[in-house]
Amino acid sequence: MTQAVRHDSMRARNLGLVLSEVRRSGPVTRAALAEITGLTKTTVSKMVGDLIEAGMVTETGTLRDGERGRPGTAVSLSGERVAALGLEINVDYLSACVVDLTLTVRLRYTQAVDNRVASPVETLARLQKLIHRAVDEARSAGLVIAGSTLAVPGPVNGGLLHSAPNLGWHDVRVGDLLVPDGGLPGVEVENEANLAALGELWFGTGHGDFLHVSGEIGIGAGLVVGGALFRGARGLAGELGHVVVSPDGPACRCGSRGCLEQYAGQEALLRAAGLPAPAPRTAPDATAPDLTASGLTVSDGATPDGATPDGAAPDGAAAISGAPVAPGAPVAPGGVAELVARLRDGDGPALEACARAGRALGIALTSATHLLDPGTIVLGGVFAPLFPWISGPVRDAMTERLTAMRHAVPEITVSRLGADAATLGAAGQVIHRVIADPGLHLAAARTAPAPR
Amino acid sequence: MTQAVRHDSMRARNLGLVLSEVRRSGPVTRAALAEITGLTKTTVSKMVGDLIEAGMVTETGTLRDGERGRPGTAVSLSGERVAALGLEINVDYLSACVVDLTLTVRLRYTQAVDNRVASPVETLARLQKLIHRAVDEARSAGLVIAGSTLAVPGPVNGGLLHSAPNLGWHDVRVGDLLVPDGGLPGVEVENEANLAALGELWFGTGHGDFLHVSGEIGIGAGLVVGGALFRGARGLAGELGHVVVSPDGPACRCGSRGCLEQYAGQEALLRAAGLPAPAPRTAPDATAPDLTASGLTVSDGATPDGATPDGAAPDGAAAISGAPVAPGAPVAPGGVAELVARLRDGDGPALEACARAGRALGIALTSATHLLDPGTIVLGGVFAPLFPWISGPVRDAMTERLTAMRHAVPEITVSRLGADAATLGAAGQVIHRVIADPGLHLAAARTAPAPR
Repeated sequence: MTQAVRHDSMRARNLGLVLSEVRRSGPVTRAALAEITGLTKTTVSKMVGDLIEAGMVTETGTLRDGERGRPGTAVSLSGERVAALGLEINVDYLSACVVDLTLTVRLRYTQAVDNRVASPVETLARLQKLIHRAVDEARSAGLVIAGSTLAVPGPVNGGLLHSAPNLGWHDVRVGDLLVPDGGLPGVEVENEANLAALGELWFGTGHGDFLHVSGEIGIGAGLVVGGALFRGARGLAGELGHVVVSPDGPACRCGSRGCLEQYAGQEALLRAAGLPAPAPRTAPDATAPDLTASGLTVSDGATPDGATPDGAAPDGAAAISGAPVAPGAPVAPGGVAELVARLRDGDGPALEACARAGRALGIALTSATHLLDPGTIVLGGVFAPLFPWISGPVRDAMTERLTAMRHAVPEITVSRLGADAATLGAAGQVIHRVIADPGLHLAAARTAPAPR
Repeated sequence: MTQAVRHDSMRARNLGLVLSEVRRSGPVTRAALAEITGLTKTTVSKMVGDLIEAGMVTETGTLRDGERGRPGTAVSLSGERVAALGLEINVDYLSACVVDLTLTVRLRYTQAVDNRVASPVETLARLQKLIHRAVDEARSAGLVIAGSTLAVPGPVNGGLLHSAPNLGWHDVRVGDLLVPDGGLPGVEVENEANLAALGELWFGTGHGDFLHVSGEIGIGAGLVVGGALFRGARGLAGELGHVVVSPDGPACRCGSRGCLEQYAGQEALLRAAGLPAPAPRTAPDATAPDLTASGLTVSDGATPDGATPDGAAPDGAAAISGAPVAPGAPVAPGGVAELVARLRDGDGPALEACARAGRALGIALTSATHLLDPGTIVLGGVFAPLFPWISGPVRDAMTERLTAMRHAVPEITVSRLGADAATLGAAGQVIHRVIADPGLHLAAARTAPAPR
């Protein structure tokens, strides 16, 4: 019995080793895989066969083996079968994406909705609809969803969302409130700022050392050091939004005073610019935008008809495309779009609001730089569309405060993912786990229905 | 050749594996070591023989081997031969310690001296005398110094001290200015706050997750997560003293404004309490206290005769004792001792100064908790003797700001090492490297002279 368990766990580990190596080195021959992993050619061939059968690996032509010179059939990672679902609940939107094993984004939905005026159950019911829709689309394309991760705007420890002050949620076991969709595994829950940093690592600029700042209604951050996320002792690190900028400043929803969010959060920014914060679009139970009607917006600007995912062909023939999402300026949600328009017009109060927010962000990032020593600082979320106006004041404040002691201020760059970073990171986390331990998913992937 | 190199590096790795396992599991038999490490009994026996010859390991009686039931001779780590030198330059003192392979403190010197009024070269000349004295004492006891690390009060990257604003030092390659003492390897240089955190880990309370705060003239911090020091992208993390407490506060020597040091650094504290900051004891080149005369103070309160190390027998027979340093309240240096005396007397301005400093420290630690998520916060350096008066205001400020969002404020405890933490951590770092790769030190340790 012990022997059998050992054998199984060793097989699982070796299968993960082989698939990880295919990802890193592919296209690669079975002989080269045997040499790199130290496994026998027989073992590698059997495992590659299983992975091909599960649609995780595919043969991609002939390759001459480097050391021996003999030609062999090369294999690469395949995105045809296994995929992951990334989800996000943020203060003013819900979103979902489907990412395949090659980290190609296959589907991406964003639904603008004010979750502050809805109860957790109502918000989760909307999310559930989004899940159904995404899973259905994915299945139509012959994809098997191996798992899902949900990004939430607050610190999470062991599945428990401690507090999302901007949503007014406290101690919610979000994952338990979501009913897994027919055969879908349970939803894992993680802090959105952490997932956004991982999204930036896997889908964005791909530096190994950076602090990713997620500017939303709240402000979070995720630190990546040496290609790994820094989580702190209990996974609660990176709450940049509640770094104290001015100790006697305005009261914050978190119970403290003078937190960064009170100066550079989306609401504070819009208010300072003389713009209304995005009004709740709906009363909780009345005219909530129906997902199947018109509440759905698509983040690349396609018509919000409630069914068109990113990359869809105009005639609707290919609902899910394998094409990667084109990089480009992220779309500013709600009131931020109006703020950007005013900034482009050189509107005084809008420029002044950005200067003030940038100065506060620069002060908080000065403290963060002293404590965390990040390589680069990547401004994401709403700070991405605002980057041309906010990055100067941030850099000025940091230069003034840091130069004498550190010589160089960290480089400040813009995220190309904007508000999509967390949802993509959520899906990417599932994919990385599948690649590390593909054995758990072989059976399900083998029996997937063919694309409709 | 390649084969030989491979063989050597494998032997070095296995030797480190065996010694690390002796440290972790000792007393342990050779048979058990073979089983744990996966090496053959012949290899283990040969390596243990080499380590015994080098005085790194010693036989400590008979032990029954757990699995097989046969009795065998057990071996343990030995502190008789190999030791490390820990050094520190801080703003108002120099210190040195010698720690043996079992992490027993064998010698500890502290010299009060104002290094702000001396040039780097003068300060290093004083340190050089301290080194000579410590090495000489260690050699008399038959110890071989395997290496030394120097703690400095500022960020260090690749041996370069970027800036120690409180010393007025910038871009100093401190290690290059120290002449290695006959046969002593070059001195490695590291930030004192990082080393103090490691000192706390290895010699103090021994938690695996904590933020150690070093309160000196400057204030630094070192974060330990899962038993490892967090260094950031370039090793410059943990500069708590320059976290912004109030953005328009008093100008700081670092070039910024309102840094924590301006509220809770030793000088700010003494000034607020109506006490003079410790006056420079000497003009740079004139009456500098001669190390061989009376400038030397011993941190456990022994008579400052310039030659009495910690743990010395009163009759001077055993200049270096193997007994560990007894835990106890750290001694407050200079003006802080007077401050403590006034606090004990209930002096109003002294209490008010601690309340103000504690509040500022609580604000900076609120930001640090949001960013770093430390398990516990350990107050060290001068905050150790001030703990009874400063910890309350720190806890109050953090409770007020953190409770609603995080439920629990990190536990706040006192360091038992006080100002000795960095020097001990410096020596401990060398010992940990020796244990990981003892092969480099075998030859030197074998040929050590017998104790005088």
